[in-house]
Amino acid sequence: MNELEEGSRLQLDFGKLVKVAANAPDVLPVAVQNVDTGEVILVAYVNELALRSAIESRKAVFWSTSRKELWEKGKTSGEMFDLVEVRVNCEQNSLVYRVRPQRGNICHTKNKAGEPRNCYYRRLDFETGELDLLDP
Amino acid sequence: MNELEEGSRLQLDFGKLVKVAANAPDVLPVAVQNVDTGEVILVAYVNELALRSAIESRKAVFWSTSRKELWEKGKTSGEMFDLVEVRVNCEQNSLVYRVRPQRGNICHTKNKAGEPRNCYYRRLDFETGELDLLDP
Repeated sequence: MNELEEGSRLQLDFGKLVKVAANAPDVLPVAVQNVDTGEVILVAYVNELALRSAIESRKAVFWSTSRKELWEKGKTSGEMFDLVEVRVNCEQNSLVYRVRPQRGNICHTKNKAGEPRNCYYRRLDFETGELDLLDP
Repeated sequence: MNELEEGSRLQLDFGKLVKVAANAPDVLPVAVQNVDTGEVILVAYVNELALRSAIESRKAVFWSTSRKELWEKGKTSGEMFDLVEVRVNCEQNSLVYRVRPQRGNICHTKNKAGEPRNCYYRRLDFETGELDLLDP
């Protein structure tokens, strides 16, 4: 078991954003929402190229801030997401992608049935401070 | 009219994240969702203090990366948000706050009726590349 990804211990990576900014100084966060269920399924990053590519392909395309390349979601896994709508916030410094899955969920982790999850499958227990797994 | 906030021209601030990381090197992005409607209403940032404060107060508390201080949403405006749930992603580097408004919406901008909007009130038109105002 990958403790970070499957465990109940909260160990937030507060160093992430500094790494993102160092690796990819020209990205914005994008909240990704399933347009049919309303579920928030991912927060990722886009730069201008990724946004343009997403609009042209009408697919959920991001910028991988670790690999420093276009991240065409599902290109290898098969779980692709149609881009239905892009929303922009007041200050034009974040986005919402409203998407529709062609097949399965968006996360690279899998539940016990072997199916991809969506990324927010853990809920913080306010009393214990531990994480409850919602899609084991 | 504030062109950045009200206008139809897409002028994304791709320099935002570098500023965030420089001002607040220990924050993570949080997508804020209305738990009743499913609407994504804001993307903001939290550090450890803001998260702890949010959990203790059961309110939507963020870290203001510009003012470098706790941002207790609604403390001055009156639009407060009860914190119903916190979700954590696979890699523990982003959050979702599921919230319930006590009164109005979350954005600092207002529509023509003088009421606060939610932040994603503009949709990108895929054909023209312009922004459509959904809550004028």
